[in-house]
Amino acid sequence: MPDTVAAAALRRFMAGIFEAAGVPAADAAQVAGLMAEADLIGADGHGVFRLAQYVRRIRAGGMNPRAVPHIVEERPASALIDGDNGLGHLATTLAARTAIAKAKTQGVAWCGVRGGNHAGPASLYARMPMEEGMIGLYLAVGSANHLPPWGGLELLLSTNPIAVAVPARHEPPIVLDMATTVAAYGKVKVKAQRGEAMPEGWMIDRLGRALTDPARANEGLLLPIGGYKGYGLALIFGLLAGTLNGAAMGRDVVDFNADDTSVTNTGQAILAIDIAAFGDPEAFRDRIDALAREIRGSERLPGVERIFLPGEQSAATRARRAIEGVPIPPQLRAQLDALAAELGAPKL
Amino acid sequence: MPDTVAAAALRRFMAGIFEAAGVPAADAAQVAGLMAEADLIGADGHGVFRLAQYVRRIRAGGMNPRAVPHIVEERPASALIDGDNGLGHLATTLAARTAIAKAKTQGVAWCGVRGGNHAGPASLYARMPMEEGMIGLYLAVGSANHLPPWGGLELLLSTNPIAVAVPARHEPPIVLDMATTVAAYGKVKVKAQRGEAMPEGWMIDRLGRALTDPARANEGLLLPIGGYKGYGLALIFGLLAGTLNGAAMGRDVVDFNADDTSVTNTGQAILAIDIAAFGDPEAFRDRIDALAREIRGSERLPGVERIFLPGEQSAATRARRAIEGVPIPPQLRAQLDALAAELGAPKL
Repeated sequence: MPDTVAAAALRRFMAGIFEAAGVPAADAAQVAGLMAEADLIGADGHGVFRLAQYVRRIRAGGMNPRAVPHIVEERPASALIDGDNGLGHLATTLAARTAIAKAKTQGVAWCGVRGGNHAGPASLYARMPMEEGMIGLYLAVGSANHLPPWGGLELLLSTNPIAVAVPARHEPPIVLDMATTVAAYGKVKVKAQRGEAMPEGWMIDRLGRALTDPARANEGLLLPIGGYKGYGLALIFGLLAGTLNGAAMGRDVVDFNADDTSVTNTGQAILAIDIAAFGDPEAFRDRIDALAREIRGSERLPGVERIFLPGEQSAATRARRAIEGVPIPPQLRAQLDALAAELGAPKL
Repeated sequence: MPDTVAAAALRRFMAGIFEAAGVPAADAAQVAGLMAEADLIGADGHGVFRLAQYVRRIRAGGMNPRAVPHIVEERPASALIDGDNGLGHLATTLAARTAIAKAKTQGVAWCGVRGGNHAGPASLYARMPMEEGMIGLYLAVGSANHLPPWGGLELLLSTNPIAVAVPARHEPPIVLDMATTVAAYGKVKVKAQRGEAMPEGWMIDRLGRALTDPARANEGLLLPIGGYKGYGLALIFGLLAGTLNGAAMGRDVVDFNADDTSVTNTGQAILAIDIAAFGDPEAFRDRIDALAREIRGSERLPGVERIFLPGEQSAATRARRAIEGVPIPPQLRAQLDALAAELGAPKL
């Protein structure tokens, strides 16, 4: 069992690191809060795990620590936000806030981001409309290409994720957050860090053979879900979150794991749907409760103990980690200690 | 090789049948046109193949031949349409037209349908905004449940499809149209009609074993793409296209293959995105062209002759069938002849 750290301590630590790297205090706190939330829900490839990488990018000049994301195109139900090459969480949060405000009057709203950066787990942003009683849908262009087109070898696509969050009444909200590949690349990174093998079906090598050693991930290709269907989804989500906004797609996508200096021009998109624009929102919440219970209580395959709704497992992780803290493996702890020392910031 | 019939003849035939079944001429022509388009693009489970079933439902009182779909909730960027239990194509087309008109000023718009019926292939409706220079996205609740929740046995979900259509400049448009199961149920029906076995991976039986005989499809469970991910997508698309609109989801979904009389209350949803709200639409089309060429021209796995963009294969089918006609297998021809005789309508 690795040591655990309380989310609040993690948040303070990360905010301190960002401030030491030149990020204004309010922005540092906002990003640190979202990253700690990523760790709480079990998105281990997206929270404090990424801190050193973000700081390295800031210090290398690849990311603007004092970015001011702002709206560059606007209609009553849409906006395009330029992230000013800052921490991706800032532009994406502005996109979500803008979509929520517009959807309240217009019924729905869609906001896109260009000039952003890696923003952490998709569900964080789909949940923002949900916390206002709306449905949230989020798409992103992943921050490195790991997926070839179907039948291809060149890594032209990322694991472009989708997240959708739907509020219930008494039941937990339904929150889907998935990459369009069988495994997200963040999960591969976590396997590598833990020294564990990957299951077959996550990656193939360039001859089409199963690849299970995460240390060899850079020789491999992630597999899309459902073959050509997952390729189609990754492409379309990338078009909607990237190409539409003038953000990077295809060969333009910078591998932010390998390159700290090139501007990534990362794209994201968020849709907010005001449930009240389609009828009584309380009746809607009751229908979601009924459906969740119907699914959970339905007949199971032999050997299956429980049927889950999307989001139940990360909600359980969040509840447990809120009490027990976030596990920090020794290698990660050592990396964070070195980072703090390097920046003269307080240790975790 | 089955006989082929020109799309125009198919369209006239279907319109004549609908009129004989009591559908007003303009509606009959509109639905027949969309169904012939389904046959042209190779969506063989969605065109004339469904004609006898639709007519049976009308004559059994399960569908309203003189329906008048209409808006019941409206905001500047959203609308909810009641399909008045008519042919699904009518309400869904109204939803698409409404979304397009609203997106032109608002930037984006989302329209939902309740009280609809089976409306044919998803791409027909995603293409409607595309033909106006927009991006179209369409979701639907399938018209019969064939998918259990992940780990379950009860068929609580349908193959709930997504279609997205994106215009290019010189390249063909990118049009994704996919069910969230490995195979759409319409494809299973076509296999059964042709007497062909299904590939392994399409369905399992209730003990989890591969099921390949399409005649036994009613004992089987369709498999979702990517395991729990496809289950999550089917659920979420159903929530957005069904539950949000007060349309059927879960146990409320009527199996329209087995039951001609119960009102289906089918739900659909369409999103129109005005590309001009996010920057120069010509520059966008150029970016799509460049990306399509980049993907098509990229390095291929050994043995792969060509990398396809979504929609290229159905566009090729459409081009071929526009010249050669739509193949009509003998069993289908016999069924259509009987239908025409029964209604006293002109034969195909």
